[in-house]
Amino acid sequence: MNIGSYAYEEYVHLVKSFHGSLAPGLLIGGFMVDLALKNLPEGEFFDAVCETPICLPDAVQLLTPCTIGNGWLTVLPFGRFAVSLYEKTDGRGVRVYLDMEKLKAWDEVHAWYLKLKKKPEQNYERLMSQIKEAGHGLLSVQRVRVEPETLRRKKLGPVAVCPVCGEAYPARHGERCKGCQGEAPYLEIEKVEAR
Amino acid sequence: MNIGSYAYEEYVHLVKSFHGSLAPGLLIGGFMVDLALKNLPEGEFFDAVCETPICLPDAVQLLTPCTIGNGWLTVLPFGRFAVSLYEKTDGRGVRVYLDMEKLKAWDEVHAWYLKLKKKPEQNYERLMSQIKEAGHGLLSVQRVRVEPETLRRKKLGPVAVCPVCGEAYPARHGERCKGCQGEAPYLEIEKVEAR
Repeated sequence: MNIGSYAYEEYVHLVKSFHGSLAPGLLIGGFMVDLALKNLPEGEFFDAVCETPICLPDAVQLLTPCTIGNGWLTVLPFGRFAVSLYEKTDGRGVRVYLDMEKLKAWDEVHAWYLKLKKKPEQNYERLMSQIKEAGHGLLSVQRVRVEPETLRRKKLGPVAVCPVCGEAYPARHGERCKGCQGEAPYLEIEKVEAR
Repeated sequence: MNIGSYAYEEYVHLVKSFHGSLAPGLLIGGFMVDLALKNLPEGEFFDAVCETPICLPDAVQLLTPCTIGNGWLTVLPFGRFAVSLYEKTDGRGVRVYLDMEKLKAWDEVHAWYLKLKKKPEQNYERLMSQIKEAGHGLLSVQRVRVEPETLRRKKLGPVAVCPVCGEAYPARHGERCKGCQGEAPYLEIEKVEAR
């Protein structure tokens, strides 16, 4: 069994190294991306959109050329376990989602995903082996069309230097950077000499 | 010269494989994360916050345990080339930023970052060799304290099944999922048989 271009064990190794642990969501996510890739027309340049920030984006980043930093992966805060890959100019692509009907055939996965059992009552081994055995069997596929412009990361545009902090920022944000407009998350900030 | 726990050439190889190309921002980003790690108190569990989605998040994901999918990396849309690593309970950490004063000593990097030259006028070789030679020399360090709660990804909470699409979603989103509240990016969507 392969996941994307990796053998199963290679994928597990990659996930542990990148994500820190073999989370169930990374295993389901691996099968999702794999199924999406298999249902995509060949040879196209595609972008990705994940409908949850939890786990799934890491499967996309490991199995496709799309990452957060290169802008080809968009993460939407819907909390649906679904990923779409779409051609970046015409927006046509496929969406793979965790199918609640199919989930019912796998009791441990069903109970875990819908949080029907508390963590100490879950059986991790059984959960993972059900996910592995089910593979694509938990998933369904839709053909979709998106408006690529609405998902694409905005271009940086002209750059200005903020008169308050002295750092560069996108001029379109206004006369000072967003950090100095009160949005920075810092309660304290103080320059120090680097070690 | 090392970048994080990698030899320089190893890092370059990793970046090309993950990000798709050796973008200048990934090279500066590598030095930034490296400097942040060197200035962090040893042995702590830290989270990361990037102040731009462009390039820098990929350096964080390659060089630290923090990824988008595991929730330890937060990306803020400030457009400042800066990254903070902070202890996840008390919020104390370091922020490394691209220092506009220091940038002036490196003409090609300065012109590239502030977009003073059009792309065809830029000299990629000179740009990359200046970044490599400068290393930490483009960067400054601040000691910071953040409020970890405000940056931490929200817990999923109870899960519901959407009466419209039939998929699972966070119950706190309301009576239907955000996708079925009109936020989905799909112009067309149609179930198909998986290949």
